[in-house]
Amino acid sequence: MPSSAEANSIIGIDIGGTKIATGLVSREFHVVERAILPTPRDASAERVLEQIYRSVDAILQKSNITKSDITGIGVVAPGPLNPDAGVVISAPNIPAFKDIPIVEHLQGRFGFPTRLENDANAAGLAEALFGSGVGHDHVFYTTVSTGIGTGIIINRRIYHGKNGTAAEGGHVTIDFRGPVCNCGRKGCIEAYASGPALARRAKERLAGCEGRSRILDLVDGDLERVTPVEISRAAEEDDPLAIELISETGEYLAIWLGGMVSLLDPDIVVIGGGLSLMGERLFSAIRERLPTYSINPFAKDVPVVPARLQRDVGILGAAALFLEAKTDEVLI
Amino acid sequence: MPSSAEANSIIGIDIGGTKIATGLVSREFHVVERAILPTPRDASAERVLEQIYRSVDAILQKSNITKSDITGIGVVAPGPLNPDAGVVISAPNIPAFKDIPIVEHLQGRFGFPTRLENDANAAGLAEALFGSGVGHDHVFYTTVSTGIGTGIIINRRIYHGKNGTAAEGGHVTIDFRGPVCNCGRKGCIEAYASGPALARRAKERLAGCEGRSRILDLVDGDLERVTPVEISRAAEEDDPLAIELISETGEYLAIWLGGMVSLLDPDIVVIGGGLSLMGERLFSAIRERLPTYSINPFAKDVPVVPARLQRDVGILGAAALFLEAKTDEVLI
Repeated sequence: MPSSAEANSIIGIDIGGTKIATGLVSREFHVVERAILPTPRDASAERVLEQIYRSVDAILQKSNITKSDITGIGVVAPGPLNPDAGVVISAPNIPAFKDIPIVEHLQGRFGFPTRLENDANAAGLAEALFGSGVGHDHVFYTTVSTGIGTGIIINRRIYHGKNGTAAEGGHVTIDFRGPVCNCGRKGCIEAYASGPALARRAKERLAGCEGRSRILDLVDGDLERVTPVEISRAAEEDDPLAIELISETGEYLAIWLGGMVSLLDPDIVVIGGGLSLMGERLFSAIRERLPTYSINPFAKDVPVVPARLQRDVGILGAAALFLEAKTDEVLI
Repeated sequence: MPSSAEANSIIGIDIGGTKIATGLVSREFHVVERAILPTPRDASAERVLEQIYRSVDAILQKSNITKSDITGIGVVAPGPLNPDAGVVISAPNIPAFKDIPIVEHLQGRFGFPTRLENDANAAGLAEALFGSGVGHDHVFYTTVSTGIGTGIIINRRIYHGKNGTAAEGGHVTIDFRGPVCNCGRKGCIEAYASGPALARRAKERLAGCEGRSRILDLVDGDLERVTPVEISRAAEEDDPLAIELISETGEYLAIWLGGMVSLLDPDIVVIGGGLSLMGERLFSAIRERLPTYSINPFAKDVPVVPARLQRDVGILGAAALFLEAKTDEVLI
């Protein structure tokens, strides 16, 4: 029986459009080694796969772990995929990575049991099991960043739906006549409250001569450089426009989350991703307004909290796939 | 052991704002006796309870059934309730019926095991087990009528959420700047596509002088008499405005259901309630447009079908509470 500290370690791989982040996760659910490699996004699928293999090799070498101490490899990717079949259907920003039976490839190369999952679903699971959702059965997780992803955790398990493509909550519309989303539809919450949507609204306001704003100083007057980071900083310095923009973002998220609470009655709402780092100002706006946008009489009691597993959430989410309860019973 | 045809019969009670419909449901899931009594809607809670008792007494007398042959009483009501505690929190249109521990009352009076459920949830379960959803694990059920109710069936069980108040899908907004809903919020799908919303849109168009319409003939020129029934009939007679109004309703439902499919990836969408009787014209409009409003790559393959258990769906839904799978395993 393995007895070292690394016993039952899991390798987690987070395939993103910019980087491939791979880590060794201990049984205490800590990331004890990391290998971060750039994603060869415009290369062939084979090249992408080789880069993934290389990241795993790097972890195995760095950690000096015995293969028998590894429980398996968890891998997460954005975009549509089939977790049961272990196939990435397509990956935003990696054009060649289409219909890739990645589980088969990784099992063939390394011989470990391998599991595949959508990145937001896996992050939601990790938050439910080890992050802000600990102690709760039903967690509505969302990551608000370049896009808006969601994970629906029911009874501490990922809810997949029929085809494994459930929980695309970022593309639920809050205004079918609203701004066009990256997905081509109108008024998705992603088109209102993602990082780029917030920046777009800021630019419109600034170009529309709403007077002086600290945001402009922070980008030396160059509107193209406005990102949520500057808006957040300006708000900290009490800039009225920045404060208003964040409050609006909270309002949009409250409209959307109000509907999610009407529909799913979750124990808790956990918000991760870049925009969740805006902190209390954003969260208070959401908490204050959400109950007015939900018919659920318990909406006011649903905690809305920041995610805890920020930096390593992809790797930890991938590892969590081996710790998910297999039945409604709580196994962990 | 009971051996008659009535063995293991269930009493189903459907408490509505207009009538209390109670039935005896055979083990083959047929309604073999019915007692329909008016709801004393403006009376005291005690009077309402007495009317419910009376309906059960009527069934017991009519059917001449032995008490030992009855498995239990299922009861369904609209509006917020707590299925675990067996308490009706409030019932739309029955003002006095507030915080009523109805399960305790019925068990005290009749001595049968008793279960309580939201009417749309129970109807969804009945459709999943015995109606249009047979053979499917995850069913999104909606009843489009005076209001829009929904039931989320996951693995052939009702999804309740934390407080038992999940699946209020009719109050998810599709336009947060839209028309005011009965619930006080804006742009809920109920405010766009319920029966009264359809009638309201028809009246606006007719008052707005969109020219002659067969709808006007059918109400003898009296706009106040316009209901979905006349709109449906006019459409059958190829009235262009009626056809357009139904097509619009399909479009609104497609926008909303597209989001539901993005979020829940169900096996099937089942639509009941009065408006589902409009038939193929409405369903084709929904089926044609739904995939364009969903990011789910499998949206085009999700069947959108009319409910099968129309007339007795309340009674059957109440009875189905005793036939629900208790685990993820299929018991039936």
